[in-house]
Amino acid sequence: MKRRDVLRGVALAGAAAASFPAPAIAQSTPRIQWRLASSYPKSLDTLYGASVEIARRVAEASDHRFEIRVYAGGEIVPGLQVLDAVQNGTVQCGHSASYFYVGKDPTFAFDTAIPFGLNTRQQNAWLYHGGGLPLLRAFFKTYNVVNFPAANTGTQMGGWYRKEIRSVDDLQGLKMRIGGLAGQVVSKLGVIPQQIAGGDIYPALDKGAIDAVEWSGPYDDEKLGFYKVAPHYYYPGWWEGTANVSLLVNLDEWNRLPKRYQAILEQSAAAANLSSTAKYDVLNPPAAKRLIAAGAQFRPFPAEVMEAAYKVAFDLYKETAETNAKFANIYHNWMQFRTDMLSWWRVAEFNFDYFALSHR
Amino acid sequence: MKRRDVLRGVALAGAAAASFPAPAIAQSTPRIQWRLASSYPKSLDTLYGASVEIARRVAEASDHRFEIRVYAGGEIVPGLQVLDAVQNGTVQCGHSASYFYVGKDPTFAFDTAIPFGLNTRQQNAWLYHGGGLPLLRAFFKTYNVVNFPAANTGTQMGGWYRKEIRSVDDLQGLKMRIGGLAGQVVSKLGVIPQQIAGGDIYPALDKGAIDAVEWSGPYDDEKLGFYKVAPHYYYPGWWEGTANVSLLVNLDEWNRLPKRYQAILEQSAAAANLSSTAKYDVLNPPAAKRLIAAGAQFRPFPAEVMEAAYKVAFDLYKETAETNAKFANIYHNWMQFRTDMLSWWRVAEFNFDYFALSHR
Repeated sequence: MKRRDVLRGVALAGAAAASFPAPAIAQSTPRIQWRLASSYPKSLDTLYGASVEIARRVAEASDHRFEIRVYAGGEIVPGLQVLDAVQNGTVQCGHSASYFYVGKDPTFAFDTAIPFGLNTRQQNAWLYHGGGLPLLRAFFKTYNVVNFPAANTGTQMGGWYRKEIRSVDDLQGLKMRIGGLAGQVVSKLGVIPQQIAGGDIYPALDKGAIDAVEWSGPYDDEKLGFYKVAPHYYYPGWWEGTANVSLLVNLDEWNRLPKRYQAILEQSAAAANLSSTAKYDVLNPPAAKRLIAAGAQFRPFPAEVMEAAYKVAFDLYKETAETNAKFANIYHNWMQFRTDMLSWWRVAEFNFDYFALSHR
Repeated sequence: MKRRDVLRGVALAGAAAASFPAPAIAQSTPRIQWRLASSYPKSLDTLYGASVEIARRVAEASDHRFEIRVYAGGEIVPGLQVLDAVQNGTVQCGHSASYFYVGKDPTFAFDTAIPFGLNTRQQNAWLYHGGGLPLLRAFFKTYNVVNFPAANTGTQMGGWYRKEIRSVDDLQGLKMRIGGLAGQVVSKLGVIPQQIAGGDIYPALDKGAIDAVEWSGPYDDEKLGFYKVAPHYYYPGWWEGTANVSLLVNLDEWNRLPKRYQAILEQSAAAANLSSTAKYDVLNPPAAKRLIAAGAQFRPFPAEVMEAAYKVAFDLYKETAETNAKFANIYHNWMQFRTDMLSWWRVAEFNFDYFALSHR
């Protein structure tokens, strides 16, 4: 702790000169530089932008003594290996959707979204005050990581399809770029899920190697141009009623931070979480209009497809809970929360929205 | 700026002693103590609690060098005079719902909620990224105040009624505790709006001096016991689809803050905003259950009442915009935002919620 000793000397000298109790200041504001690995490319100014917002907020609140340099997906860490890089200390922190890591354990999905899960406000309620974060943090701790909600897209769309989907039959043999738990659910309905990295999706769709792709919502999707070759754009994205992206921090690095910096980092992530959803909600409406003008066909999923997927999804959770104690532990809390939440949501919130939407 | 000069001296002495570039630290972390006047009593642990959360966050992020002491409504400033106290510098800041001040100018209502306005996520989108905050801040500046969104209840309930409301006729002559723009709207439907302070409402209702009262949602309302004498609990609270409570800061005090403290205060308010809604969303469902068990009758407003109120509300805005340029300036931006927002909301968000609620 040599540097701190120097700082203490500085502060005491100052205090002696002016009778001002400064030691606490200097000890708690060391210069710290972190690297953040994002899972997202710079072109996704929404999600990549949220990590830049966190870095800006941390710098401003610490007078640039705590600085975080943000690297886009692939710059120093491949986009889907951010958790590993944070866990082993390659970077101090990352910005990623935890459901990318369901291959390690499906329990990760609760941090982001599970099919037919919560909407964005409900997800935040569960995480911040409904018991979600403490449960998730006990789980993330086994990966030497502490997680902070740090961006959210809102309800996503259900993807782009070359042909119309009129029934569950139309899903048979459909090659679709879709991952995680959602991939497991749709595979039970006959879809053949594919894992394809962002830049390779459009060519695969264009040359017919895949029939459909799910990505995000209008603003993000517009950039990738899917509407040109797969114009049927379905809603809602029932596997992503919300999509929380977390700030993942190496636990040792977190524990080493002065308390002041811990507070600044935590509230910067919370502020970015709120801000990112607000940004999506402002950017998606005009993007949806532009997509429609460009020929996109917005279509609701057939009720038959929604019903079948709903049944398969909750069957999958039950099965998973029977063999995975970590998943079961969170699932039971989450399920009770969801049930209670929906019983209230249908009263004031839903009816307010319903009236507004029927009187545009 | 005598105190800053002292601090600068401290820092320079330290730097000279140890060759460490400390001036920026000390200049930017002076000891500051503020007083915050809340409009709410301590018993409203939700809204009062949000101002306490802001103070805690600011203290933690500044190592307790910037401290805000929170006073409940009436302790040092009457609950409905918080804006005035901030404006004239009696306190450095306050935590209040701006629509309390529609008597000064109805334009204040946009900061909180207007009847048939936005829901909570839409309100945050408008404020943070949809042009709302810059417009509102230009307006608040004329009161020497800068506003930060800093708590939100979500959609409220439509109040407690001694008798059932089956039609617009049932509103004729109804004495109801309801204020602001909502009071103006319901008065056009025959209601006689009353302004009654929190503690006096229950006795007025109990002895029949009023027939109905609107307050907040299940968790807050439960504490005041209205269900015992006015068991008909209507939804949705169409005049409060959202209710943003703002941190109001005296503009001179804001400008005097070091940039670091400005950043900390701003993000503390944003984090408290998100956190308070999450808290409401966790606390309201069990409170609603308890109220039902205690005899509360949850009832949807008749369509006839909603339709009539909707028409009257937008007529009122149009009239107000014709005579009040400040109101008109914000209203036109807000109205366009609302139209665009709803056109997108009905696609993914609404359909996701609708399916979840029809499959509990």
